[in-house]
Amino acid sequence: MDSTFRQIPPVVLQALKADLLDGDRVALGRAITLIESKRADDRKQAGLLIDAILPKTGSSIRIGITGVPGAGKSSFIEVFGTMLTASGKRVAVLSIDPASSKSKGSILGDKTRMETLSKNELAYIRPSSSGTIPGGVASHTREAILLCEAAGYDVIIVETVGVGQSETVVKEMVDYFLLLMLAGGGDELQGIKRGIMEMADHILINKADGANPEAAKRAAKAYRNAVHLFPAHEAGWTVPVATCSALEKTGIKSVWSEIEAFRQLTAGGWFEQNRRLQRIQWFHALVRSALELNFFGKANIQEAISEKEALISARKISVRKAVQELFES
Amino acid sequence: MDSTFRQIPPVVLQALKADLLDGDRVALGRAITLIESKRADDRKQAGLLIDAILPKTGSSIRIGITGVPGAGKSSFIEVFGTMLTASGKRVAVLSIDPASSKSKGSILGDKTRMETLSKNELAYIRPSSSGTIPGGVASHTREAILLCEAAGYDVIIVETVGVGQSETVVKEMVDYFLLLMLAGGGDELQGIKRGIMEMADHILINKADGANPEAAKRAAKAYRNAVHLFPAHEAGWTVPVATCSALEKTGIKSVWSEIEAFRQLTAGGWFEQNRRLQRIQWFHALVRSALELNFFGKANIQEAISEKEALISARKISVRKAVQELFES
Repeated sequence: MDSTFRQIPPVVLQALKADLLDGDRVALGRAITLIESKRADDRKQAGLLIDAILPKTGSSIRIGITGVPGAGKSSFIEVFGTMLTASGKRVAVLSIDPASSKSKGSILGDKTRMETLSKNELAYIRPSSSGTIPGGVASHTREAILLCEAAGYDVIIVETVGVGQSETVVKEMVDYFLLLMLAGGGDELQGIKRGIMEMADHILINKADGANPEAAKRAAKAYRNAVHLFPAHEAGWTVPVATCSALEKTGIKSVWSEIEAFRQLTAGGWFEQNRRLQRIQWFHALVRSALELNFFGKANIQEAISEKEALISARKISVRKAVQELFES
Repeated sequence: MDSTFRQIPPVVLQALKADLLDGDRVALGRAITLIESKRADDRKQAGLLIDAILPKTGSSIRIGITGVPGAGKSSFIEVFGTMLTASGKRVAVLSIDPASSKSKGSILGDKTRMETLSKNELAYIRPSSSGTIPGGVASHTREAILLCEAAGYDVIIVETVGVGQSETVVKEMVDYFLLLMLAGGGDELQGIKRGIMEMADHILINKADGANPEAAKRAAKAYRNAVHLFPAHEAGWTVPVATCSALEKTGIKSVWSEIEAFRQLTAGGWFEQNRRLQRIQWFHALVRSALELNFFGKANIQEAISEKEALISARKISVRKAVQELFES
């Protein structure tokens, strides 16, 4: 943790806020580092900062992107993000990886993954934060979204990193959820959790290039038929299923058109309602998380739980009794 | 609550246990009523009973059944259950309805819904329990499963009642999850949550009778294609998609053959592992539920949370600050 942010005095916080609202990237980076800090004094400062910038948040479109391993998420974001910046939009890319630790060098990793975008002045790429608090990573990313919005970013992309862990978490913090797939026999789906496909607001078959366009079209058709079998989208949105190639830069523009159509369809209704609901859910999740941290954080509770788990696993004790004993002790 | 079970003395509990293990239906009914009781003394007795019968549990196959409204769940269970009893199997039918209250007459409702099965000596039908504790209904049904197993039931069917509330809950307590659908344009899917379809271990298009068999076959084909697009089942199971008619009693036998095949495929591996995992998840859910009940049950906390929710909704306070303030007060 950067020591600059320890016991940051109010006057510096004011400056940080001002620089952030000016769209200063260094200030944005510092602000995100501050909200990720676990130090009590930093957390207090982070709270003040977030509350101060709150009126300046909410104006972006928040896009979640997930995909099966090998679907080419990074290349897609590189091309998609570059296209958006070309039309003057400011684009922030955040990532969630519950398993990651910043010290493992994911900053360098991310810069390499999206080489063009990372050099683009209108783009901001922030690697995933490490987090040990349950719900902590997600909460940090939600706050990072707010900071990016305050810094004037128009499009916030939140991508899942790693496999099968964070799709639901991302879904709950974005307006629009894009699923990147590949044409193929189905084996490549190992990496995504069951239930994710139905959550997508948009399905995109990438790598429709080289010898693949026909296979990608066939896959798109199959997914399109499947989507009709799913329960309807709450917003009355028809989930688009299309092909694209990040390599050949085809099918990328229409992704943005669809997102604009979605925003228009849901404006003044589902869009705001969904964000309100997401804030309330976030609040509840954090309250539960704080409550559990307090309880499960105690060494004797952890020990008692492990003991009970072993007994329950071996069917030597009922779940009811295990819970009773846990709360009696 | 039946007053017979208040302060039930140990000697009576012994008798209840003995009768239950003998397969006595009245004893089974009493035992389920006892575990559903919220009285402190009953809960203690319930704990003793559950622990006492624990070694006699686990030998059934637990089948979850859900379906879109109008899919004919009751008629299906009636015919499916009757077929199983005809081959000498003892069948218990439990239902979960988070919104129900027993006093609303669902007992009568259930008896009427499955008229033949409810008169069958090898079948036991128990209406859904009411529950106000978060996770309470689910926990009662899980314990009712154990009691039915101790009473010698070979097949336990847990059905969802009502719409869109309890599918995930049921999925987490069964070995096999059956989804009943209809042939149709998709509008009938309103009642099920997104994500449910991918959780199914078996998809069955009911009402393949009268003028419908062709439409049902087409629907089955479409679902079969869709299933191939989903992430693979953890157990390596290929999800069957078939048609049936509860009315004409066709396609019912093969449902059981598939379940037997599933059991065989997963025996000594996924099956036991899944049950162990479900028990641990149940334990964690109950611990969290007890913890939250304790916290959220306080009047001043409830009030503070409602206040914070209003502020968060109106974007007047950050989620972080709301949580901080909640735990400071």
